Amino acid sequence: MPIEVVAFDADDTLWHNEPLFVDTKAKFQELLSAYHSAEWIEERLYETEVRNLEHFGYGIKSFTLSMIETAVELTEGRIRGSDVQRIVDFAKSMVDQPVQLLDFVEETVKTLAATFPLVLVTKGDLFDQESKIARSGLGDLFRSVEVVTNKDRSTYEAITNKLDVAPDGFLMVGDSLKSDILPVLDMGGYAIHVPYDTTWRHEEVPADVLDGYEFQEAASIREVPRIVGELSR
Amino acid sequence: MPIEVVAFDADDTLWHNEPLFVDTKAKFQELLSAYHSAEWIEERLYETEVRNLEHFGYGIKSFTLSMIETAVELTEGRIRGSDVQRIVDFAKSMVDQPVQLLDFVEETVKTLAATFPLVLVTKGDLFDQESKIARSGLGDLFRSVEVVTNKDRSTYEAITNKLDVAPDGFLMVGDSLKSDILPVLDMGGYAIHVPYDTTWRHEEVPADVLDGYEFQEAASIREVPRIVGELSR
Repeated sequence: MPIEVVAFDADDTLWHNEPLFVDTKAKFQELLSAYHSAEWIEERLYETEVRNLEHFGYGIKSFTLSMIETAVELTEGRIRGSDVQRIVDFAKSMVDQPVQLLDFVEETVKTLAATFPLVLVTKGDLFDQESKIARSGLGDLFRSVEVVTNKDRSTYEAITNKLDVAPDGFLMVGDSLKSDILPVLDMGGYAIHVPYDTTWRHEEVPADVLDGYEFQEAASIREVPRIVGELSR
Repeated sequence: MPIEVVAFDADDTLWHNEPLFVDTKAKFQELLSAYHSAEWIEERLYETEVRNLEHFGYGIKSFTLSMIETAVELTEGRIRGSDVQRIVDFAKSMVDQPVQLLDFVEETVKTLAATFPLVLVTKGDLFDQESKIARSGLGDLFRSVEVVTNKDRSTYEAITNKLDVAPDGFLMVGDSLKSDILPVLDMGGYAIHVPYDTTWRHEEVPADVLDGYEFQEAASIREVPRIVGELSR
Protein backbone atom coordinates (compact mmCIF):
# COMPACT_ATOMS: atom_id res chain seq x y z
CA MET A 1 0.00 0.00 0.00
CA PRO A 2 1.52 3.35 -0.93
CA ILE A 3 1.69 6.16 1.60
CA GLU A 4 -1.10 8.61 0.78
CA VAL A 5 -0.65 11.21 3.50
CA VAL A 6 2.30 12.23 5.65
CA ALA A 7 1.33 13.70 9.01
CA PHE A 8 3.55 15.63 11.41
CA ASP A 9 3.38 16.34 15.07
CA ALA A 10 4.31 19.97 15.82
CA ASP A 11 5.70 20.58 19.34
CA ASP A 12 9.24 19.21 19.61
CA THR A 13 8.96 17.73 16.11
CA LEU A 14 8.80 20.87 13.97
CA TRP A 15 9.67 23.45 16.61
CA HIS A 16 11.13 23.55 20.10
CA ASN A 17 8.54 23.43 22.84
CA GLU A 18 9.49 21.38 25.88
CA PRO A 19 12.49 23.64 26.74
CA LEU A 20 10.02 26.49 27.19
CA PHE A 21 8.24 24.46 29.87
CA VAL A 22 11.53 23.32 31.40
CA ASP A 23 12.80 26.91 31.59
CA THR A 24 9.54 28.11 33.08
CA LYS A 25 9.61 25.33 35.66
CA ALA A 26 13.10 26.47 36.64
CA LYS A 27 11.81 30.02 37.16
CA PHE A 28 8.91 28.63 39.16
CA GLN A 29 11.28 26.61 41.36
CA GLU A 30 13.38 29.73 41.89
CA LEU A 31 10.27 31.68 42.86
CA LEU A 32 9.41 29.14 45.57
CA SER A 33 12.98 28.37 46.59
CA ALA A 34 12.51 29.96 50.02
CA TYR A 35 9.83 27.37 50.77
CA HIS A 36 10.94 24.04 49.29
CA SER A 37 13.63 22.17 47.41
CA ALA A 38 13.57 22.23 43.61
CA GLU A 39 12.92 18.46 43.54
CA TRP A 40 9.91 18.65 45.81
CA ILE A 41 8.45 21.59 43.87
CA GLU A 42 8.91 19.71 40.60
CA GLU A 43 7.25 16.62 42.05
CA ARG A 44 4.21 18.45 43.38
CA LEU A 45 3.84 20.51 40.22
CA TYR A 46 3.87 17.36 38.14
CA GLU A 47 1.17 15.81 40.33
CA THR A 48 -0.98 18.91 40.02
CA GLU A 49 -0.49 19.03 36.24
CA VAL A 50 -1.55 15.42 35.76
CA ARG A 51 -4.53 15.83 38.09
CA ASN A 52 -5.63 18.96 36.20
CA LEU A 53 -5.47 17.40 32.74
CA GLU A 54 -9.05 16.20 33.18
CA HIS A 55 -10.25 19.70 34.06
CA PHE A 56 -8.09 21.87 31.83
CA GLY A 57 -6.40 19.71 29.16
CA TYR A 58 -2.94 20.40 27.76
CA GLY A 59 -1.23 23.69 27.05
CA ILE A 60 0.25 26.79 28.58
CA LYS A 61 -2.90 28.08 30.29
CA SER A 62 -3.54 24.75 31.92
CA PHE A 63 0.11 24.55 33.01
CA THR A 64 -0.13 28.05 34.46
CA LEU A 65 -3.21 27.26 36.52
CA SER A 66 -1.32 24.22 37.83
CA MET A 67 1.68 26.36 38.78
CA ILE A 68 -0.63 28.74 40.64
CA GLU A 69 -2.35 25.92 42.53
CA THR A 70 0.98 24.34 43.39
CA ALA A 71 2.33 27.68 44.62
CA VAL A 72 -0.64 28.17 46.93
CA GLU A 73 -0.34 24.64 48.23
CA LEU A 74 3.42 24.65 48.75
CA THR A 75 3.42 28.00 50.52
CA GLU A 76 0.39 27.00 52.59
CA GLY A 77 -1.38 30.04 51.26
CA ARG A 78 1.43 32.45 52.07
CA ILE A 79 2.31 33.14 48.43
CA ARG A 80 2.42 36.87 47.79
CA GLY A 81 0.15 38.51 45.24
CA SER A 82 3.16 39.83 43.37
CA ASP A 83 4.46 36.28 42.99
CA VAL A 84 1.10 35.08 41.70
CA GLN A 85 1.33 37.87 39.14
CA ARG A 86 4.82 36.72 38.20
CA ILE A 87 3.42 33.28 37.42
CA VAL A 88 0.77 34.82 35.15
CA ASP A 89 3.58 36.79 33.53
CA PHE A 90 5.48 33.54 32.92
CA ALA A 91 2.45 32.42 30.90
CA LYS A 92 2.39 35.60 28.83
CA SER A 93 6.07 35.28 28.13
CA MET A 94 5.55 31.65 27.06
CA VAL A 95 2.78 32.42 24.59
CA ASP A 96 4.72 35.35 23.16
CA GLN A 97 7.94 33.37 22.69
CA PRO A 98 9.18 33.27 19.07
CA VAL A 99 8.66 29.93 17.32
CA GLN A 100 12.03 28.26 16.84
CA LEU A 101 12.07 25.62 14.13
CA LEU A 102 14.26 22.57 14.68
CA ASP A 103 17.18 22.03 12.32
CA PHE A 104 16.32 20.90 8.77
CA VAL A 105 12.57 21.27 9.35
CA GLU A 106 11.90 23.88 6.73
CA GLU A 107 13.66 22.10 3.85
CA THR A 108 12.33 18.68 4.85
CA VAL A 109 8.74 19.81 5.02
CA LYS A 110 9.08 21.64 1.70
CA THR A 111 10.58 18.56 0.04
CA LEU A 112 7.82 16.29 1.28
CA ALA A 113 5.08 18.77 0.43
CA ALA A 114 6.08 18.50 -3.23
CA THR A 115 5.16 14.78 -3.26
CA PHE A 116 2.63 14.16 -0.47
CA PRO A 117 -0.34 15.94 1.00
CA LEU A 118 0.88 16.94 4.46
CA VAL A 119 -1.20 17.14 7.60
CA LEU A 120 -0.32 18.67 10.95
CA VAL A 121 -1.68 16.84 13.99
CA THR A 122 -1.03 18.67 17.23
CA LYS A 123 -2.30 18.37 20.75
CA GLY A 124 -2.94 21.23 23.06
CA ASP A 125 -4.46 24.61 23.24
CA LEU A 126 -6.13 25.75 20.01
CA PHE A 127 -5.30 29.42 20.44
CA ASP A 128 -1.67 28.78 21.21
CA GLN A 129 -1.19 26.16 18.49
CA GLU A 130 -2.79 28.31 15.78
CA SER A 131 -0.62 31.20 16.78
CA LYS A 132 2.51 29.04 16.57
CA ILE A 133 1.53 27.58 13.19
CA ALA A 134 1.01 31.10 11.84
CA ARG A 135 4.32 32.31 13.23
CA SER A 136 6.22 29.21 12.01
CA GLY A 137 5.71 30.24 8.39
CA LEU A 138 4.96 26.58 7.54
CA GLY A 139 1.15 26.75 7.62
CA ASP A 140 0.71 26.90 3.84
CA LEU A 141 2.65 23.68 3.32
CA PHE A 142 0.01 21.68 5.18
CA ARG A 143 -3.21 20.68 3.50
CA SER A 144 -4.94 20.49 6.84
CA VAL A 145 -4.21 21.25 10.46
CA GLU A 146 -5.83 19.17 13.16
CA VAL A 147 -5.59 20.54 16.69
CA VAL A 148 -6.83 17.78 18.96
CA THR A 149 -7.32 17.45 22.70
CA ASN A 150 -5.76 14.02 22.88
CA LYS A 151 -3.90 11.66 20.57
CA ASP A 152 -5.17 8.13 20.85
CA ARG A 153 -6.10 5.52 18.28
CA SER A 154 -9.62 6.88 17.85
CA THR A 155 -8.23 10.38 17.20
CA TYR A 156 -6.17 9.04 14.31
CA GLU A 157 -9.09 6.97 13.02
CA ALA A 158 -11.25 10.09 12.97
CA ILE A 159 -8.54 11.97 11.06
CA THR A 160 -7.99 9.27 8.43
CA ASN A 161 -11.77 8.97 8.02
CA LYS A 162 -12.11 12.68 7.53
CA LEU A 163 -9.25 12.73 5.01
CA ASP A 164 -10.68 9.62 3.33
CA VAL A 165 -7.34 7.84 3.64
CA ALA A 166 -6.88 4.15 4.50
CA PRO A 167 -5.10 3.56 7.83
CA ASP A 168 -2.15 1.95 6.03
CA GLY A 169 -1.92 4.94 3.71
CA PHE A 170 -1.23 7.20 6.71
CA LEU A 171 2.25 7.87 8.03
CA MET A 172 2.91 9.90 11.17
CA VAL A 173 6.16 11.63 12.11
CA GLY A 174 6.66 12.70 15.71
CA ASP A 175 8.75 12.74 18.85
CA SER A 176 6.30 11.15 21.29
CA LEU A 177 6.06 7.36 21.34
CA LYS A 178 2.90 7.60 23.40
CA SER A 179 1.05 10.17 21.29
CA ASP A 180 2.54 10.03 17.78
CA ILE A 181 3.78 6.49 17.25
CA LEU A 182 1.96 3.76 19.19
CA PRO A 183 -1.66 4.84 18.53
CA VAL A 184 -0.90 5.17 14.79
CA LEU A 185 0.60 1.67 14.71
CA ASP A 186 -2.42 0.39 16.66
CA MET A 187 -4.63 1.81 13.93
CA GLY A 188 -2.60 0.03 11.25
CA GLY A 189 -0.65 3.03 9.99
CA TYR A 190 3.06 3.79 9.66
CA ALA A 191 5.15 5.91 11.98
CA ILE A 192 8.60 7.45 12.11
CA HIS A 193 9.91 8.35 15.53
CA VAL A 194 12.22 11.36 15.65
CA PRO A 195 13.22 11.61 19.32
CA TYR A 196 13.64 14.98 20.94
CA ASP A 197 16.20 15.79 23.67
CA THR A 198 13.65 16.22 26.43
CA THR A 199 10.35 14.46 26.98
CA TRP A 200 7.70 15.43 29.49
CA ARG A 201 7.32 12.56 31.98
CA HIS A 202 3.67 12.19 31.12
CA GLU A 203 4.59 11.31 27.53
CA GLU A 204 7.08 8.60 28.49
CA VAL A 205 6.30 4.92 27.96
CA PRO A 206 8.00 1.97 29.68
CA ALA A 207 10.35 0.06 27.35
CA ASP A 208 8.37 -3.20 27.50
CA VAL A 209 5.27 -1.51 26.07
CA LEU A 210 7.19 -1.27 22.79
CA ASP A 211 7.48 -5.05 22.42
CA GLY A 212 6.04 -6.23 19.15
CA TYR A 213 5.71 -2.75 17.65
CA GLU A 214 7.50 -2.01 14.39
CA PHE A 215 8.36 1.52 13.45
CA GLN A 216 11.19 3.54 11.99
CA GLU A 217 13.53 5.62 14.11
CA ALA A 218 15.27 8.69 12.68
CA ALA A 219 17.95 10.73 14.42
CA SER A 220 16.88 13.82 12.50
CA ILE A 221 13.79 14.91 10.58
CA ARG A 222 16.18 15.22 7.62
CA GLU A 223 16.03 11.43 7.21
CA VAL A 224 12.26 11.34 6.88
CA PRO A 225 11.97 11.80 3.07
CA ARG A 226 14.37 8.89 2.46
CA ILE A 227 12.49 6.60 4.88
CA VAL A 228 9.12 7.57 3.41
CA GLY A 229 10.54 6.84 -0.04
CA GLU A 230 11.66 3.38 1.03
CA LEU A 231 8.33 2.61 2.72
CA SER A 232 6.42 3.73 -0.37
CA ARG A 233 8.28 1.37 -2.65
CA MET B 1 -29.54 29.53 -4.49
CA PRO B 2 -30.67 26.79 -2.15
CA ILE B 3 -29.24 26.50 1.34
CA GLU B 4 -26.68 23.69 1.29
CA VAL B 5 -25.45 23.74 4.87
CA VAL B 6 -26.95 24.99 8.14
CA ALA B 7 -24.39 26.00 10.74
CA PHE B 8 -24.99 26.63 14.42
CA ASP B 9 -23.14 28.54 17.04
CA ALA B 10 -23.00 26.61 20.33
CA ASP B 11 -22.61 28.79 23.46
CA ASP B 12 -25.89 30.59 24.21
CA THR B 13 -27.40 29.26 20.98
CA LEU B 14 -27.61 25.53 21.74
CA TRP B 15 -26.80 25.60 25.44
CA HIS B 16 -26.59 28.14 28.25
CA ASN B 17 -23.12 29.61 28.71
CA GLU B 18 -23.03 33.30 29.57
CA PRO B 19 -24.91 32.79 32.90
CA LEU B 20 -22.03 30.61 34.04
CA PHE B 21 -19.67 33.54 33.52
CA VAL B 22 -22.12 35.98 35.08
CA ASP B 23 -22.51 33.74 38.15
CA THR B 24 -18.78 33.29 38.48
CA LYS B 25 -18.24 37.04 38.20
CA ALA B 26 -20.72 37.50 41.04
CA LYS B 27 -18.71 35.07 43.19
CA PHE B 28 -15.53 36.89 42.23
CA GLN B 29 -17.05 40.24 43.21
CA GLU B 30 -18.12 38.73 46.51
CA LEU B 31 -14.60 37.43 47.10
CA LEU B 32 -13.14 40.92 46.66
CA SER B 33 -16.01 42.79 48.29
CA ALA B 34 -13.84 43.87 51.23
CA TYR B 35 -11.60 45.76 48.80
CA HIS B 36 -13.81 47.36 46.16
CA SER B 37 -17.34 47.91 44.90
CA ALA B 38 -18.90 45.31 42.61
CA GLU B 39 -19.02 47.86 39.76
CA TRP B 40 -15.36 48.71 39.97
CA ILE B 41 -14.37 45.02 40.15
CA GLU B 42 -16.51 44.28 37.09
CA GLU B 43 -14.97 47.17 35.19
CA ARG B 44 -11.38 46.19 35.93
CA LEU B 45 -12.03 42.52 35.25
CA TYR B 46 -13.51 43.39 31.86
CA GLU B 47 -10.46 45.50 31.00
CA THR B 48 -8.14 42.67 31.98
CA GLU B 49 -10.17 40.14 29.99
CA VAL B 50 -10.08 42.22 26.83
CA ARG B 51 -6.36 42.95 27.24
CA ASN B 52 -5.65 39.25 27.72
CA LEU B 53 -7.55 38.07 24.64
CA GLU B 54 -4.42 38.58 22.57
CA HIS B 55 -2.35 36.44 24.95
CA PHE B 56 -4.82 33.78 25.96
CA GLY B 57 -7.84 33.84 23.63
CA TYR B 58 -11.41 33.03 24.73
CA GLY B 59 -12.62 30.49 27.24
CA ILE B 60 -12.71 29.54 30.88
CA LYS B 61 -8.95 29.20 31.44
CA SER B 62 -8.29 32.58 29.91
CA PHE B 63 -11.09 34.11 31.99
CA THR B 64 -9.63 32.53 35.12
CA LEU B 65 -6.16 33.92 34.51
CA SER B 66 -7.83 37.32 34.07
CA MET B 67 -9.69 36.95 37.37
CA ILE B 68 -6.42 36.09 39.12
CA GLU B 69 -4.60 39.08 37.61
CA THR B 70 -7.46 41.39 38.51
CA ALA B 71 -7.54 40.06 42.08
CA VAL B 72 -3.82 40.72 42.53
CA GLU B 73 -4.17 44.19 41.08
CA LEU B 74 -7.29 45.20 43.01
CA THR B 75 -5.93 43.98 46.34
CA GLU B 76 -2.53 45.55 45.63
CA GLY B 77 -1.00 42.14 46.10
CA ARG B 78 -2.72 41.47 49.41
CA ILE B 79 -4.93 38.68 48.03
CA ARG B 80 -4.63 35.59 50.20
CA GLY B 81 -3.41 32.30 48.79
CA SER B 82 -6.63 30.62 49.84
CA ASP B 83 -8.60 33.15 47.78
CA VAL B 84 -6.37 32.54 44.76
CA GLN B 85 -7.16 28.86 45.19
CA ARG B 86 -10.87 29.69 45.33
CA ILE B 87 -10.58 31.39 41.95
CA VAL B 88 -8.92 28.28 40.48
CA ASP B 89 -11.76 26.28 42.01
CA PHE B 90 -14.29 28.56 40.28
CA ALA B 91 -12.67 27.45 37.02
CA LYS B 92 -12.93 23.77 37.87
CA SER B 93 -16.55 24.18 38.81
CA MET B 94 -17.20 26.00 35.50
CA VAL B 95 -15.66 23.28 33.34
CA ASP B 96 -17.48 20.57 35.27
CA GLN B 97 -20.89 22.25 35.05
CA PRO B 98 -23.56 20.12 33.31
CA VAL B 99 -24.45 21.25 29.80
CA GLN B 100 -27.94 22.73 29.82
CA LEU B 101 -29.60 22.81 26.43
CA LEU B 102 -31.84 25.77 25.65
CA ASP B 103 -35.54 25.09 25.11
CA PHE B 104 -36.50 23.38 21.84
CA VAL B 105 -32.87 22.83 20.84
CA GLU B 106 -32.93 19.08 20.72
CA GLU B 107 -36.03 18.72 18.54
CA THR B 108 -35.06 21.61 16.27
CA VAL B 109 -31.57 20.28 15.61
CA LYS B 110 -32.98 16.79 14.96
CA THR B 111 -35.57 18.15 12.54
CA LEU B 112 -33.01 20.13 10.58
CA ALA B 113 -30.49 17.28 10.56
CA ALA B 114 -33.00 15.20 8.60
CA THR B 115 -32.85 17.69 5.70
CA PHE B 116 -29.55 19.55 5.88
CA PRO B 117 -25.96 18.71 6.69
CA LEU B 118 -25.37 20.55 9.97
CA VAL B 119 -22.14 22.13 11.12
CA LEU B 120 -21.22 23.45 14.54
CA VAL B 121 -19.03 26.55 14.56
CA THR B 122 -17.89 27.54 18.01
CA LYS B 123 -15.31 29.89 19.39
CA GLY B 124 -13.25 29.26 22.45
CA ASP B 125 -11.21 26.68 24.17
CA LEU B 126 -10.93 23.39 22.26
CA PHE B 127 -10.81 21.21 25.35
CA ASP B 128 -13.82 22.83 26.94
CA GLN B 129 -15.88 22.96 23.74
CA GLU B 130 -15.24 19.31 22.86
CA SER B 131 -16.21 18.30 26.34
CA LYS B 132 -19.46 20.29 26.10
CA ILE B 133 -20.31 18.88 22.66
CA ALA B 134 -19.80 15.36 23.97
CA ARG B 135 -21.92 16.02 27.05
CA SER B 136 -24.68 17.76 25.05
CA GLY B 137 -25.61 14.50 23.33
CA LEU B 138 -25.96 16.41 20.05
CA GLY B 139 -22.52 15.66 18.60
CA ASP B 140 -23.70 12.94 16.21
CA LEU B 141 -26.21 15.26 14.56
CA PHE B 142 -23.46 17.48 13.22
CA ARG B 143 -21.49 16.47 10.16
CA SER B 144 -18.56 18.54 11.30
CA VAL B 145 -17.52 20.55 14.31
CA GLU B 146 -15.30 23.57 13.87
CA VAL B 147 -13.76 25.01 17.00
CA VAL B 148 -12.17 28.29 15.99
CA THR B 149 -10.19 30.95 17.81
CA ASN B 150 -12.11 33.82 16.28
CA LYS B 151 -15.17 34.29 14.10
CA ASP B 152 -14.56 36.79 11.35
CA ARG B 153 -15.32 36.76 7.65
CA SER B 154 -12.13 34.85 6.81
CA THR B 155 -13.01 32.17 9.35
CA TYR B 156 -16.32 31.54 7.59
CA GLU B 157 -14.66 31.65 4.18
CA ALA B 158 -12.20 28.99 5.31
CA ILE B 159 -15.08 26.84 6.58
CA THR B 160 -17.18 27.12 3.41
CA ASN B 161 -14.06 26.37 1.35
CA LYS B 162 -13.31 23.32 3.40
CA LEU B 163 -16.92 22.12 3.14
CA ASP B 164 -16.94 22.94 -0.57
CA VAL B 165 -20.07 25.05 -0.17
CA ALA B 166 -20.78 28.35 -1.93
CA PRO B 167 -21.02 31.34 0.44
CA ASP B 168 -24.69 31.81 -0.47
CA GLY B 169 -25.36 28.15 0.24
CA PHE B 170 -24.29 28.68 3.85
CA LEU B 171 -26.67 29.70 6.60
CA MET B 172 -25.56 30.46 10.14
CA VAL B 173 -27.72 30.46 13.27
CA GLY B 174 -26.41 32.18 16.38
CA ASP B 175 -26.92 34.65 19.19
CA SER B 176 -24.01 36.98 18.55
CA LEU B 177 -24.44 39.69 15.93
CA LYS B 178 -20.72 40.34 15.99
CA SER B 179 -19.53 36.73 15.65
CA ASP B 180 -22.37 34.76 14.08
CA ILE B 181 -24.33 37.17 11.91
CA LEU B 182 -22.38 40.10 10.45
CA PRO B 183 -19.26 38.23 9.24
CA VAL B 184 -21.47 35.60 7.53
CA LEU B 185 -23.45 38.34 5.76
CA ASP B 186 -20.19 40.03 4.78
CA MET B 187 -19.14 36.78 3.14
CA GLY B 188 -22.41 36.62 1.19
CA GLY B 189 -24.13 33.97 3.30
CA TYR B 190 -27.42 33.87 5.20
CA ALA B 191 -27.90 34.30 8.91
CA ILE B 192 -30.62 33.89 11.50
CA HIS B 193 -30.17 35.79 14.73
CA VAL B 194 -31.61 34.11 17.84
CA PRO B 195 -30.87 36.57 20.64
CA TYR B 196 -29.96 35.33 24.07
CA ASP B 197 -30.90 37.03 27.35
CA THR B 198 -27.40 38.13 28.23
CA THR B 199 -24.56 39.16 25.96
CA TRP B 200 -20.97 39.68 26.98
CA ARG B 201 -20.08 43.34 26.41
CA HIS B 202 -17.26 42.37 24.09
CA GLU B 203 -19.78 40.77 21.71
CA GLU B 204 -22.07 43.80 21.53
CA VAL B 205 -22.25 45.95 18.40
CA PRO B 206 -23.54 49.52 18.17
CA ALA B 207 -26.96 49.75 16.48
CA ASP B 208 -25.73 51.85 13.55
CA VAL B 209 -23.30 49.12 12.48
CA LEU B 210 -26.34 47.08 11.49
CA ASP B 211 -27.45 49.61 8.85
CA GLY B 212 -27.79 47.97 5.47
CA TYR B 213 -27.52 44.41 6.74
CA GLU B 214 -30.36 42.02 6.04
CA PHE B 215 -30.89 39.02 8.22
CA GLN B 216 -33.67 37.08 9.91
CA GLU B 217 -34.47 37.45 13.58
CA ALA B 218 -36.06 34.60 15.54
CA ALA B 219 -37.32 34.78 19.12
CA SER B 220 -36.64 31.08 19.56
CA ILE B 221 -34.56 28.44 17.81
CA ARG B 222 -37.88 26.67 17.25
CA GLU B 223 -38.60 29.10 14.39
CA VAL B 224 -35.42 28.25 12.53
CA PRO B 225 -36.72 25.31 10.41
CA ARG B 226 -39.61 27.43 9.09
CA ILE B 227 -37.31 30.35 8.22
CA VAL B 228 -34.80 28.06 6.56
CA GLY B 229 -37.66 26.51 4.59
CA GLU B 230 -38.80 29.94 3.38
CA LEU B 231 -35.28 31.03 2.47
CA SER B 232 -34.72 27.80 0.53
CA ARG B 233 -37.77 28.29 -1.64
